[in-house]
Amino acid sequence: MSGVAVRNIPRAGAADVEALARFGVATLHEAQGRTGLMKPCMRPIYAGAACCGTAVTVIGHPGDNWMLHVAAELVRPGDVVVMTVSADNGDGMFGELLATSFRARGARGLVIEAGCRDVGELTRMQFPVWSRAVSAKGTVKATVGSVNVPIVCAGVAIHPGDVVAADDDGVVVIPRLRAAEVAAAAAAREKKEQETRRRLAAGELGLDIYGMRDALAKAGLTYLDEPPSET
Amino acid sequence: MSGVAVRNIPRAGAADVEALARFGVATLHEAQGRTGLMKPCMRPIYAGAACCGTAVTVIGHPGDNWMLHVAAELVRPGDVVVMTVSADNGDGMFGELLATSFRARGARGLVIEAGCRDVGELTRMQFPVWSRAVSAKGTVKATVGSVNVPIVCAGVAIHPGDVVAADDDGVVVIPRLRAAEVAAAAAAREKKEQETRRRLAAGELGLDIYGMRDALAKAGLTYLDEPPSET
Amino acid sequence: MSGVAVRNIPRAGAADVEALARFGVATLHEAQGRTGLMKPCMRPIYAGAACCGTAVTVIGHPGDNWMLHVAAELVRPGDVVVMTVSADNGDGMFGELLATSFRARGARGLVIEAGCRDVGELTRMQFPVWSRAVSAKGTVKATVGSVNVPIVCAGVAIHPGDVVAADDDGVVVIPRLRAAEVAAAAAAREKKEQETRRRLAAGELGLDIYGMRDALAKAGLTYLDEPPSET
Amino acid sequence: MSGVAVRNIPRAGAADVEALARFGVATLHEAQGRTGLMKPCMRPIYAGAACCGTAVTVIGHPGDNWMLHVAAELVRPGDVVVMTVSADNGDGMFGELLATSFRARGARGLVIEAGCRDVGELTRMQFPVWSRAVSAKGTVKATVGSVNVPIVCAGVAIHPGDVVAADDDGVVVIPRLRAAEVAAAAAAREKKEQETRRRLAAGELGLDIYGMRDALAKAGLTYLDEPPSET
Amino acid sequence: MSGVAVRNIPRAGAADVEALARFGVATLHEAQGRTGLMKPCMRPIYAGAACCGTAVTVIGHPGDNWMLHVAAELVRPGDVVVMTVSADNGDGMFGELLATSFRARGARGLVIEAGCRDVGELTRMQFPVWSRAVSAKGTVKATVGSVNVPIVCAGVAIHPGDVVAADDDGVVVIPRLRAAEVAAAAAAREKKEQETRRRLAAGELGLDIYGMRDALAKAGLTYLDEPPSET
Amino acid sequence: MSGVAVRNIPRAGAADVEALARFGVATLHEAQGRTGLMKPCMRPIYAGAACCGTAVTVIGHPGDNWMLHVAAELVRPGDVVVMTVSADNGDGMFGELLATSFRARGARGLVIEAGCRDVGELTRMQFPVWSRAVSAKGTVKATVGSVNVPIVCAGVAIHPGDVVAADDDGVVVIPRLRAAEVAAAAAAREKKEQETRRRLAAGELGLDIYGMRDALAKAGLTYLDEPPSET
Repeated sequence: MSGVAVRNIPRAGAADVEALARFGVATLHEAQGRTGLMKPCMRPIYAGAACCGTAVTVIGHPGDNWMLHVAAELVRPGDVVVMTVSADNGDGMFGELLATSFRARGARGLVIEAGCRDVGELTRMQFPVWSRAVSAKGTVKATVGSVNVPIVCAGVAIHPGDVVAADDDGVVVIPRLRAAEVAAAAAAREKKEQETRRRLAAGELGLDIYGMRDALAKAGLTYLDEPPSET
Repeated sequence: MSGVAVRNIPRAGAADVEALARFGVATLHEAQGRTGLMKPCMRPIYAGAACCGTAVTVIGHPGDNWMLHVAAELVRPGDVVVMTVSADNGDGMFGELLATSFRARGARGLVIEAGCRDVGELTRMQFPVWSRAVSAKGTVKATVGSVNVPIVCAGVAIHPGDVVAADDDGVVVIPRLRAAEVAAAAAAREKKEQETRRRLAAGELGLDIYGMRDALAKAGLTYLDEPPSET
Repeated sequence: MSGVAVRNIPRAGAADVEALARFGVATLHEAQGRTGLMKPCMRPIYAGAACCGTAVTVIGHPGDNWMLHVAAELVRPGDVVVMTVSADNGDGMFGELLATSFRARGARGLVIEAGCRDVGELTRMQFPVWSRAVSAKGTVKATVGSVNVPIVCAGVAIHPGDVVAADDDGVVVIPRLRAAEVAAAAAAREKKEQETRRRLAAGELGLDIYGMRDALAKAGLTYLDEPPSET
Repeated sequence: MSGVAVRNIPRAGAADVEALARFGVATLHEAQGRTGLMKPCMRPIYAGAACCGTAVTVIGHPGDNWMLHVAAELVRPGDVVVMTVSADNGDGMFGELLATSFRARGARGLVIEAGCRDVGELTRMQFPVWSRAVSAKGTVKATVGSVNVPIVCAGVAIHPGDVVAADDDGVVVIPRLRAAEVAAAAAAREKKEQETRRRLAAGELGLDIYGMRDALAKAGLTYLDEPPSET
Repeated sequence: MSGVAVRNIPRAGAADVEALARFGVATLHEAQGRTGLMKPCMRPIYAGAACCGTAVTVIGHPGDNWMLHVAAELVRPGDVVVMTVSADNGDGMFGELLATSFRARGARGLVIEAGCRDVGELTRMQFPVWSRAVSAKGTVKATVGSVNVPIVCAGVAIHPGDVVAADDDGVVVIPRLRAAEVAAAAAAREKKEQETRRRLAAGELGLDIYGMRDALAKAGLTYLDEPPSET
Repeated sequence: MSGVAVRNIPRAGAADVEALARFGVATLHEAQGRTGLMKPCMRPIYAGAACCGTAVTVIGHPGDNWMLHVAAELVRPGDVVVMTVSADNGDGMFGELLATSFRARGARGLVIEAGCRDVGELTRMQFPVWSRAVSAKGTVKATVGSVNVPIVCAGVAIHPGDVVAADDDGVVVIPRLRAAEVAAAAAAREKKEQETRRRLAAGELGLDIYGMRDALAKAGLTYLDEPPSET
């Protein structure tokens, strides 16, 4: 089961990444047609964590974090490392030492479909991690995986160089070639929502703002003035 | 699968709701004879969230939040919206725009056996939500459910107008007609606990305060001065 | 199903406990040869919780916290109570009243393979608890278990008097007779990590610091300059 | 936490129960407007298990099967016992001895939101059980619950005397007063499906039989003759 | 959220599919370098289920099986339908009527990251299904998805026309262009295993057949003649 | 993380093992005072699987089955191999080739807190396995663990040479030195149950056979002749 590590990958443009970084994950997911969202088991290790960058992808073996060391060398400033494992595993594959290395190399964060440890230290460092588990369980360095190949992480297919955005709501992947288009759609969406927000705050109803009353009636919703008597 | 929305429902009295709001969920659950507690999968989206109010009930479809817009119109100041879904689902059915609308209409919070999104925004707004998942996953508005009908949410049967109280420990439902009785029982319980707390803090043992030593002996507990030698 | 409660147990020495208390759970787990770690379902009830002490062990019955009252009497200053249940259960077996009693008796914290309640109060008290659930669900006092007998908690065998250390990363058990040895190994490990941390922060790679490049090549890792063309 | 046991309850009529017993759970659930289905964690202990009868309801305590003995006396021929527990629990509350007693009293089966044991013996006896776990774990008889009161089991509110139907697909509850109406709707549904089945078996498409093509086009489905070129 | 349905897709060759169909999933997964295996939550609805064919892919919405009707038309003899849903969902999206249609159109089976119903009927028909849940829960036909686009199902990226093989051990995906190569590797593997099996059955040890003793010693394994005395 | 393999271990006597083998797991668990039962996630790979023997214990690494080959050499006729992994893992660590080897060496079965594959083949061979997962996922042979040391498997502490009994209801461990005593207690229990079974089959109630009526009344159970009117 030998693996490969790819040194140079095409990355989404820095301007597009910065444009995307202004939006939350929920907005980006909607702007992209409700696609690209990782499963909700992926949670930030501290409240308020947020990051956006280009993906360096990693696939490893359960209980083995060797490939994260390989990834550290291939990271460029602005990257987010995204790792999956060949089988469900929650071991603490990443901690404060690797975070020190990742930060020194310019990584903005880590998304890992496995476990994370040293979460107290990482919180103090404000190094953001999204993982499916927190565990002090250490790992071996025995079996080779791959870096910068296409992977599936938490239910989403991701290519090296795609954009990864993450916040309190989860993690979304924007394909490299769609970055500009999705940033534009997100901006349009957010602009429209400002007006909606103002009207909702004033007490107007979504039923009226979105014109839902007819569709509800047609779909069979009946209003009653009082509860029906129980049978 | 047409549905109904009931405009006017009998609600627990405001004075009873305020009386219940002074107690934590654990106390109310005990005061009510250890009933009415939702399953512990229902968690607040931020630490310290707490609310108490009268239930506007909603049942919807997985991946579809249409009925929350219908509920927004039927909310009255002091209500808490309680939503379940016809099958297990963790989609982000509620976010900051709906929270803006709910707050404008007087809702005190949301209890939803599904997912929530925009949790960073909702935390800044201090709009309390209890959900079984956090997910940026958006929903459609395609299938009709019902509002203000009896539902089962997270294992508890609830009628519109019942009292819902929620805090860091979970969510409890107090039937409308029992509100006054449970508030009184909670007050009595809390008063008794103050004296117990004082004695425990002084180093007295529950074994003595509650008089448990005889019952333990009768139930077969044996004290040994030293560990038995291993077999 | 009668039980026993052992009054006097051999405990790890106070100096060893204090030596161990200086290290995080991840470090102790590594220093001990990657053993003794409880399953990651055991989570602190508030961020930043940490404690280290000698174990008073408890085994009880699902939905029944009677034995925690028995344990309160057997606690000595510096102890951590560790409880398991004879079957998976998430009921709120421990709350603010028992914490008041435990603190008055000198307990430093609780590790419980079941549920905890009053987490708001416990956070304000800064009484640290690690549990597999948070639930307001109250418990009965009807069936006898045992205190200060060997138990298995969250996958780890633990004897009364062993050292228990817990923080944001989880819970680790250090056998009583290994306490001094593990403290020394942890100190050695931490010392070595300081130098590694400094070098990683300066941008050196783990690949070079740990000398991994040859082993990776031998294990079959191949570097490519560009992504392979897709098949 | 004292409880009640109700000796006499109104039951759905025997003719209606027999009419409902001719249909599978999926058909009854549809005929009832897609309501009344227990959560899919409720599984039969052997393939091909099926039963239909009137509910004797039980609520007990985790790890405690005392109330099943109380229920045994209140069972009448044609009943199905439906038990829930006040907190999630998978203990083996029911085994071959209780099944012998239940069968002698006329019970047709058991639905239990907890665990079951002796599944080899129960399979040989062909005594059908639906449970959320299989476990040899024994239970105590220490705390009182109730029999023949309204309960929530696996997400569904059920009253004593309602009809319970169960097969390989799960468990559905039909309220007592709706039994005749749902049986009629199920018969109508099944009749219609026979013709649909014949046409589908002949190679006709659901798209044509149900006239879906226009609605799909209106909803935005686009047919392509070939895969789009990858971006 | 409009979707697309692709009528014509390139499929793996029939001879390659038949060659692959001779091997079990575990062998194919190994022969392919331990890749392509779906998560183990995907289970057959009856013991002994097995199938192998070319994938018609489907992505739908939670609680909505509309796109399976669209897929039925695009199936060709020898296909296996592979469906995922945009969020975790266990509803019974597929039952005996759709199976009748699928079989009439030539489909060999279904792999669905959601629920299945009518499992008694499907077992009698011997129509094999792999799903993550069994549930009688019915679905709506309200929201459009896509057919024959690349999807991720149970953690594996799959393109229309890839080979899908499934048996009691799970589901594996073989990319269309690797079908011949993997079939050859599987045949070579199985041939080698025959000799190994014969030697193991005769009592020889894997330690000797695979020559593991040196590697174990180098990795630090120590043999003791007796258990060490307990510390 | 070097390991040890112990060649010679004290084993429970063959006569005691055969005496225990006559009873089901539920009976043995009760006879032993309701202790020693593994968590119910441990399920047999086929219905009707049963075995009883002396434990050869194994601890390995997630995704790595190397130590099962070491165990094969240390197995003696009448043993059952019991393996755990240092972190939760469901990989298919055991299949038909290892079963062929195990059977040739005299092993009666396998209990593994991880995954199993080739379940179709194993069923045909009638080689019984209890595991927490079924998965075709292959494993590496890279990291050393230990054989015949004390382990915790599925929540139970087990020493090499203890008795392991397993059937459809789960897996129970009987400590080596308690084997004779537990066999005697199980025989006594089963004898008593025969008379109880006869009486229950004749329609007598457990309430009377076990004399529960007084205790129920004292515990607060109230009988009502009719349902209370709803509040």
